[in-house]
Amino acid sequence: MVDILHKVGIKSSSPNDAYKALTTREGLSAWWTIDTRGDSKVGGVLLFRFGDGGFDMKVLEFQPAKRVLWQVLDGPQEWIGTKISFDLKQEGDWTIVLFKHHGWKEPVEFMYHCSTKWAVFLLSLKSLLETGKGAPWPNEFKLDGWEEAAPRASTTAAA
Amino acid sequence: MVDILHKVGIKSSSPNDAYKALTTREGLSAWWTIDTRGDSKVGGVLLFRFGDGGFDMKVLEFQPAKRVLWQVLDGPQEWIGTKISFDLKQEGDWTIVLFKHHGWKEPVEFMYHCSTKWAVFLLSLKSLLETGKGAPWPNEFKLDGWEEAAPRASTTAAA
Repeated sequence: MVDILHKVGIKSSSPNDAYKALTTREGLSAWWTIDTRGDSKVGGVLLFRFGDGGFDMKVLEFQPAKRVLWQVLDGPQEWIGTKISFDLKQEGDWTIVLFKHHGWKEPVEFMYHCSTKWAVFLLSLKSLLETGKGAPWPNEFKLDGWEEAAPRASTTAAA
Repeated sequence: MVDILHKVGIKSSSPNDAYKALTTREGLSAWWTIDTRGDSKVGGVLLFRFGDGGFDMKVLEFQPAKRVLWQVLDGPQEWIGTKISFDLKQEGDWTIVLFKHHGWKEPVEFMYHCSTKWAVFLLSLKSLLETGKGAPWPNEFKLDGWEEAAPRASTTAAA
């Protein structure tokens, strides 16, 4: 089992504002993908779409201003069953987001890609909370040819 | 043991150009830190400085246009003994960089920070090779309060 870990600090925000950006469709669609659907409550399923592909996430845990935990129900094969958590805390002027995407079976090349891509989206979350403007899909920073041709998630269909 | 993994694609570059950016002081100082010193050859030691702190890396492996491997001799305690590799390949119009920082003993919070920070610097490498301009320290994108006060590496002194 290998994990993707990230940390960003958000200036002059609050764990509560970060929590809102992670638990409301409006918030999620402002930093991850504009095409965010579904039911953002414990036991509910959120649908994140990136053109042809995407992820279905079951909400496992919501602790206001503290923690969010999802589990991947559907999406690229490598993601299914993995869990994604966001832990929030305040440190001085900074709201800290500790991100973990855990339960990957193997460190395949797609995992390398997803790790860097999560960083890109977490910087979008940071920007949203600091400036009011994130860069959700389809306007996020592109990393490589996989994304130029089509969202990588769509290759699941070929798997 | 836990690893930090990343992948970036660089458009209209070549594995050879990426290799130069990873193996010459001129290249390294244009995307990682402007204060890069030492001897960039197998068996040599490179000194990367970020103000008060930094990393000393022994060069373990150079495979032209293919692979670079360093081992950390000195720096923050958590880094000592870890290894950092860059694997290069061409895929169509894209030069692919697969990055691995391996040998972390524990997934401490500093590892979360370093993971995201490596993404920031790899995006700087991508920018350098695509546009001629990277964002090395001290002009890199800042992630959190650790960096605002002083480079995190300097806290080693307190460890």
